[in-house]
Amino acid sequence: MNQPSASHSPSLLQQIRLDKVRIVLSHTSHPGNIGAAARAMKTMGLSRLSLVNPKSFPHNEAIARAAGAEDILVEASVWSTLDEALAGCVFAVAVSARHRSLGPEPLPAREAAPEILQLAEAGDVALVFGNETSGLSNAEVQRCQRTVFIPANPDYSSLNLGSAVQLLCYELRLAAFDGCPPVVTKAIPFASPPATNDDIERFYAHLEHVMVSTGFLDPKQPKRLLPKLRRLFGRAELERDEINILRGILDAVEKKIGE
Amino acid sequence: MNQPSASHSPSLLQQIRLDKVRIVLSHTSHPGNIGAAARAMKTMGLSRLSLVNPKSFPHNEAIARAAGAEDILVEASVWSTLDEALAGCVFAVAVSARHRSLGPEPLPAREAAPEILQLAEAGDVALVFGNETSGLSNAEVQRCQRTVFIPANPDYSSLNLGSAVQLLCYELRLAAFDGCPPVVTKAIPFASPPATNDDIERFYAHLEHVMVSTGFLDPKQPKRLLPKLRRLFGRAELERDEINILRGILDAVEKKIGE
Repeated sequence: MNQPSASHSPSLLQQIRLDKVRIVLSHTSHPGNIGAAARAMKTMGLSRLSLVNPKSFPHNEAIARAAGAEDILVEASVWSTLDEALAGCVFAVAVSARHRSLGPEPLPAREAAPEILQLAEAGDVALVFGNETSGLSNAEVQRCQRTVFIPANPDYSSLNLGSAVQLLCYELRLAAFDGCPPVVTKAIPFASPPATNDDIERFYAHLEHVMVSTGFLDPKQPKRLLPKLRRLFGRAELERDEINILRGILDAVEKKIGE
Repeated sequence: MNQPSASHSPSLLQQIRLDKVRIVLSHTSHPGNIGAAARAMKTMGLSRLSLVNPKSFPHNEAIARAAGAEDILVEASVWSTLDEALAGCVFAVAVSARHRSLGPEPLPAREAAPEILQLAEAGDVALVFGNETSGLSNAEVQRCQRTVFIPANPDYSSLNLGSAVQLLCYELRLAAFDGCPPVVTKAIPFASPPATNDDIERFYAHLEHVMVSTGFLDPKQPKRLLPKLRRLFGRAELERDEINILRGILDAVEKKIGE
């Protein structure tokens, strides 16, 4: 399906925002779906594809389904963990429709798109898609600050992975270009830059260490403590200064208890 | 990708409108795309598929790509001309992005979707998609009363046929349910009731006490530490269970430092 040539070129700023969006596909089984995702991305002006433990990549089937979007496959990065793929991101969004007991409150894609683009002004943002059959694991969803879903037929909601990528990229493009200027839904401007995914993971590791050394957390019986804390701090969308304060408190505790 | 089960079924009227929409695929080359279209339709609650001169149908590749939507393939009707496929329709929409000298003025999909559904109250409406490579012929576009396009990257606008069907069906579903399709229950199963103001103030007092006793906070020079922490936890909208966890950590720290 061909598109009319644009009468005016897109504004640079809007394209820059789309360039900050990483599409992260975790544990994809079928290489054809990776190609379909690349094609879907390119039709909407996105270009950065990250793959976490794909079953087969590179693969001819990916190239075939990418049609004219092979450049995105060539530039794609491949990682062995989701944390690596999210390194340097200021915000990560899990695309998942399943309800989680501990994930952040899910938002429909259309509602979330302007917020995602707004955050892309501060740094890289990631949209994370899970395996075709099993979706994202709870651990993967907990690495993300937001969960987004695609409203679908409750009796049959099994979207193809490439279609899910297409819909999300479409919503991002419309939010970027289509007279829907990004709206700050929470109206809280960042007082400091947002913390990166790496900062946040180091904070969780530090917090866990202190909880263990004070005896609050029994590593043999962790229960659901860590996921619950991730859910709490995930909602807050931590800033860099805040991470520094929280880790400063943890440092002071460790010093005091003689660690 | 799975969807949570609905807490209530969609309203009958809205579903009836979606049932009036025929998806018409003309001269489709690849049977896999017919299966992908069926799957895309079913995820959005559409069910009526018409095929005009498909190159290969029925076909195993169509069944494979339909995933759980084989019922739509079984019920699909096959015609030798577009006129036959459109018989009985009150309105037909050509999905095409190429500008035509003679076709009707093209509308973006999002703008067109409410009109299409409005017309579905009067009778059957059709969305007509052309061949993967050549699109719709001028003669086919002229059989339709409206042309709709999907806004895309002007440098690469080659949407996969299944993706194009997915996006149009998605727009129709959102338009049918006013952007709020009945899929998600607001309740998060394990969320606890919100903390009361008193709970939260006691937490802040406790946190302040620990920060002072570990030497992190100098009461004579508090700077803006406490307001910053209030801002952070304020954004998170703490729940009662979360307050209990946070205060549990503070208790463990106090016990460990011998307070």
